Amino acid sequence: MAIENARKSVAGLLNAHPGEIFFTSGGTESNNTAILSAIRDLGCTHIITSPIEHHAVLHTVAHYASRKTISFSFVKLLADGHIDLKDLEAQLAGREDKCLVTLMHANNEIGNLLSMNVVSALCRKYNAVFHSDCVQTVGHYPIDLSRMDIDFISASGHKFHGPKGVGILYVNSNVQAKPLLHGGGQERNMRAGTENLYGIVGFARALELAMERYEQDSAYIKKLKAYMTTQLLQHLPGIGFNGDYDGSCLYTVLNTSVPQSAKSEMLLFNLDIHGICVSGGSACSSGASQGSHVINALKLDDIGVAGRFSFCKYNTMQEVDKVVEVLTGLI
Amino acid sequence: MAIENARKSVAGLLNAHPGEIFFTSGGTESNNTAILSAIRDLGCTHIITSPIEHHAVLHTVAHYASRKTISFSFVKLLADGHIDLKDLEAQLAGREDKCLVTLMHANNEIGNLLSMNVVSALCRKYNAVFHSDCVQTVGHYPIDLSRMDIDFISASGHKFHGPKGVGILYVNSNVQAKPLLHGGGQERNMRAGTENLYGIVGFARALELAMERYEQDSAYIKKLKAYMTTQLLQHLPGIGFNGDYDGSCLYTVLNTSVPQSAKSEMLLFNLDIHGICVSGGSACSSGASQGSHVINALKLDDIGVAGRFSFCKYNTMQEVDKVVEVLTGLI
Repeated sequence: MAIENARKSVAGLLNAHPGEIFFTSGGTESNNTAILSAIRDLGCTHIITSPIEHHAVLHTVAHYASRKTISFSFVKLLADGHIDLKDLEAQLAGREDKCLVTLMHANNEIGNLLSMNVVSALCRKYNAVFHSDCVQTVGHYPIDLSRMDIDFISASGHKFHGPKGVGILYVNSNVQAKPLLHGGGQERNMRAGTENLYGIVGFARALELAMERYEQDSAYIKKLKAYMTTQLLQHLPGIGFNGDYDGSCLYTVLNTSVPQSAKSEMLLFNLDIHGICVSGGSACSSGASQGSHVINALKLDDIGVAGRFSFCKYNTMQEVDKVVEVLTGLI
Repeated sequence: MAIENARKSVAGLLNAHPGEIFFTSGGTESNNTAILSAIRDLGCTHIITSPIEHHAVLHTVAHYASRKTISFSFVKLLADGHIDLKDLEAQLAGREDKCLVTLMHANNEIGNLLSMNVVSALCRKYNAVFHSDCVQTVGHYPIDLSRMDIDFISASGHKFHGPKGVGILYVNSNVQAKPLLHGGGQERNMRAGTENLYGIVGFARALELAMERYEQDSAYIKKLKAYMTTQLLQHLPGIGFNGDYDGSCLYTVLNTSVPQSAKSEMLLFNLDIHGICVSGGSACSSGASQGSHVINALKLDDIGVAGRFSFCKYNTMQEVDKVVEVLTGLI
C-alpha cells in the first residue's frame, strides 16, 4: 500500500500515469534498464549520445557496442557545451537503422540544460526512441511528462534530499519494455526483487517536499549561484566559468575554471583541507586533477583547473563568502 | 568509510576477504549478476539448476536460455525434495561444455538444505562454476566461505531482520567477474550506482547481531518449529509436511499440507482473516491457491493445500498455539 501510494504521488507530481513509474535502485539502474530495453525490446541498433553524458549512460552504451550488437555515435557539442541540434538532426536523417537517442536533461558537471521538446520532436520525426537521464532535474524543475513526448526518463532520490539507493524509471505507456532484473513479479513484472520500501516511500516524500517548495527554494538557490558568480568575478579576475553558466543552465551548479599555475595545481586538495567540498568532476587522486571527461569534451583552448560547486537550499550566503575568501587566498 | 567498515564486518562474519564482498540491491540482483557473469565472463554455455530454485534464478536462467546463448537442465529431485546428487554428477560427467551449477543453499518454501560441500566438490571435479542462492541461510547459520569452495553466493538483508533493498554478492577472488550495472566506479567497478548507504550499514549490523545471537536464537526458533510440528500432529491427524522437515532442513520454515476439502480450499484466505500470515508459496489470487512451483515440482501423490509457516526470534509459543487452534477450527 505504501509503495502504491508512493507511486501515485510520484506519478502525480510528474504528470504521468502510475503504471509508467517503476522504482529501481537508482539512476544508474534506470539508465541501464532503459538502454538495454531500447536495444533488446525495441530493436534499436544505433545509439546517438553525447560525450558529456554520465558514465551510467556512456559505459552502458560502450558495453553493448563492445559486444557488437549495436553501434553508437556522439552528437557534436557547441562551444558553450550545448548539444548541436543540427548535428543531431543530420545524424538522425542520415540513418536507416532504428536509433536510440540518449541525452541527459541537465549535465551534472556544467549544468547545461537540453531543449527536451526539440529533441523529442526530432526523435518522433525520425522514429527514434528517446531516453533522458533526468537525475539532475527531477525535483529541481517542474516536469510534466504528459507534455514531454519521451520514451524513458531516469531519476534518483538522493539528488533532491531523498534517500540513496532508490530511483525511478519512467516508461511511456506506449513502450513495451522488459526487465533488466529477472525474478519475482514486483513492479508489475518490470523490476524483480524485494522492494526498498523505506527508500521508495522516502523518494516520494522528498519529491513532494521538493515540488511543494520549488518556487521559494529555487529562487533562493539561484541567488546563491548568482552571488557566487559576481563575487568570484570581483575577487578573482582570472576566473572563468565552464558551460552556459548564466544561460540555459541548472541553478544548482557552477563550474569554475581557474588558470593553471603552481598554486592552482593543488587547488581542490587545499579547498578540501579548508572544509570546502568541491569536485573536479571525476575522481581526483592525491589532490592532482585527473580531468573530467565532460570538461575534456568541451575542448577548451585554456582548460584551467575546473571546480564544480553545487548549491542546495541548505547553503548560505556566508558559505559563499567563505569559499570566495579561501579561493582568493589560495590563488 | 561506513561502507568499507560494513564490508570488512560482513567479510569477517562469512570468513571471506573484503574484496570478495559486493553490495547490491538484494538477492535478486546478486543472483542475476552471478548468472550473467558465469555466462558472459566465465564462458558457461550450460546451466544445471533445479525446478525448486527461486524465480530470481529460474527466470534469469530461462531468460538467457530463451535467447539461445545457453542451454539448461534440471537436476532430479528425490522424494523428500532433496537434490539427487547422483543425477547431478551424471549430468556433469556427461557434458563437454562449460557448466554453471546454480543450486540454492536452502529452499525458501520447504526448507531443504543442500549439501554444499558435496556439490562444491562435484563442481570442482568437473570444472563447473558453482553459484548458490544463500538468501535463506546467511544470518541463520554460521557460514565459512574459506572452507566452502564456491564461486558466487547471494544473500539479502531483510532475511535476517536487516533492511530491504540491500544484499551482497560474494565473488570468489579467483573469479574474474564483470558488472551487471555499468556506470560509476562504485564497489571497485563491480556494481555501479550511488550506494544505498544506510542499507549497507544496516545489512552489516543485522548480520553482526544475527551471528552474535545465533546459538540462542536458533535454539529458540528450533523449539518453536518442533512445538508446532507436534501440536499439529496431535490436533490435526490428517496433516502432512512437505520436504525434509525434520531432517536436513531450515529451522525457520515449516511447510504444512492439509488434505483437499471444501474447508481447505479457502484456508489461506481464512487464516489471513484471523491475522495469521502464511504463504501458499507463490502468489495467491482471491484466496484460491494457485499452487507453488516448488510444491508442484515435488510431484506429490496427494498434494493437499500447502502452507508455508516461517518462524523468527520474535514469534512465541502462544502464537503457535493460536495458529494450531485456528487451523483446527477451520478444518
